[in-house]
Amino acid sequence: MREGEYHDDGTVSFGGRSYAVDDVEILAPCEPSKIVCVGRNYAKHAEERGEDVPDRPLLFLKPPNTVAGHGNTVTLRPEGEVEHEVELGVVIGEQCRHVEEADAMDVVAGYTAAVDVSNRDDQDREQNWVRGKAFDGSCPLGPVLADPAHVPEGADVELRVNGETRQSSNTEHFIFSVPELIAEITQYMTLEEGDVIITGTPEGVGPLEDGDRVEAEIEGVGTLEHDVRRD
Amino acid sequence: MREGEYHDDGTVSFGGRSYAVDDVEILAPCEPSKIVCVGRNYAKHAEERGEDVPDRPLLFLKPPNTVAGHGNTVTLRPEGEVEHEVELGVVIGEQCRHVEEADAMDVVAGYTAAVDVSNRDDQDREQNWVRGKAFDGSCPLGPVLADPAHVPEGADVELRVNGETRQSSNTEHFIFSVPELIAEITQYMTLEEGDVIITGTPEGVGPLEDGDRVEAEIEGVGTLEHDVRRD
Repeated sequence: MREGEYHDDGTVSFGGRSYAVDDVEILAPCEPSKIVCVGRNYAKHAEERGEDVPDRPLLFLKPPNTVAGHGNTVTLRPEGEVEHEVELGVVIGEQCRHVEEADAMDVVAGYTAAVDVSNRDDQDREQNWVRGKAFDGSCPLGPVLADPAHVPEGADVELRVNGETRQSSNTEHFIFSVPELIAEITQYMTLEEGDVIITGTPEGVGPLEDGDRVEAEIEGVGTLEHDVRRD
Repeated sequence: MREGEYHDDGTVSFGGRSYAVDDVEILAPCEPSKIVCVGRNYAKHAEERGEDVPDRPLLFLKPPNTVAGHGNTVTLRPEGEVEHEVELGVVIGEQCRHVEEADAMDVVAGYTAAVDVSNRDDQDREQNWVRGKAFDGSCPLGPVLADPAHVPEGADVELRVNGETRQSSNTEHFIFSVPELIAEITQYMTLEEGDVIITGTPEGVGPLEDGDRVEAEIEGVGTLEHDVRRD
């Protein structure tokens, strides 16, 4: 893996050279040992799923097999209703535990875009969302790791399927903020460099089908794209 | 990490030399990218938890931060009712997906002992068992990786706390067998070399407190020991 720097003119620089972005393969921005996921962190999404807003963050896990990169194809099982969930991804920069809210941004390497691809048929049958949310490739991440200084406090979050806008909200509607999430999670577990927290999805989740093209855009980060294929 | 071979005379051999087992630090037998866990795989444990037996394996996840080794101390949060669950651990030997039941033992590197340390106060409040079962050190593994040929089909499974037997059963009571579990899990996710499946606990789960010494014994594997400390 090589780390280049993305420029707005459509080039990536690395090792003193510059490459057109179309000439390089863009891998996921990190290699997480775990992805800690937050459910129902926007009130309107909890409502559309018929669920209450939680009194503490609803947590679940995606293991490393779920990571996919920008431009990858996410392969779905032949059956099951699968939906998209666009999320702000927080990439951790250093091993940490028992982090106070006031210090939480110090352990953040940057932000990325994420899609939590979710099989509702499985999810709705399971106590723990493993078949529903931990299948191979179910967490596209990318396209870049953005410095938090480049991402507004209230960042627009949007997802399009085949060019049609499905989800459109702003992180100002978070129920639990990024520092609150880091403080809560690190009470229980050590986060490692490269681990990711995905921060919940806003309303507008909808079905994905064979051949769909997904664009997940976070203001200040950019647009993560992936395709969908039914196996 | 070095890999030695354990002998019944209490020595470990490595690189042509022999060491007394007390002179070496025994690390966990593998470095899993994920631990896939099975709930309610013994009918009598489902009953003691007041739950039905599932019609397909109940799955949940422990990420790498949960791994602890033989002789380690598991640190618990100041509050919460925490219980022990002894389990047969299946260590995967090669990257695999879509494994048929008939071929499942080909991807098994060996068996180990595991304890699924579980905070019931958190588990019983959560949709996904993250705070309850994914906290640091909540999955002691070891002491060795045993060739499946050395472990009987129906292996005794026992757990003692401070020398008192709390759990005593046999893997013949599994609801889902090891091959059935591997086939089911790999329908959804790729297993990597070193990944672990823990196969559920029998009846007799009970409380752990500060200062307790746990011994988890699997016939043909040996005895995994760990201490418990309240933070």
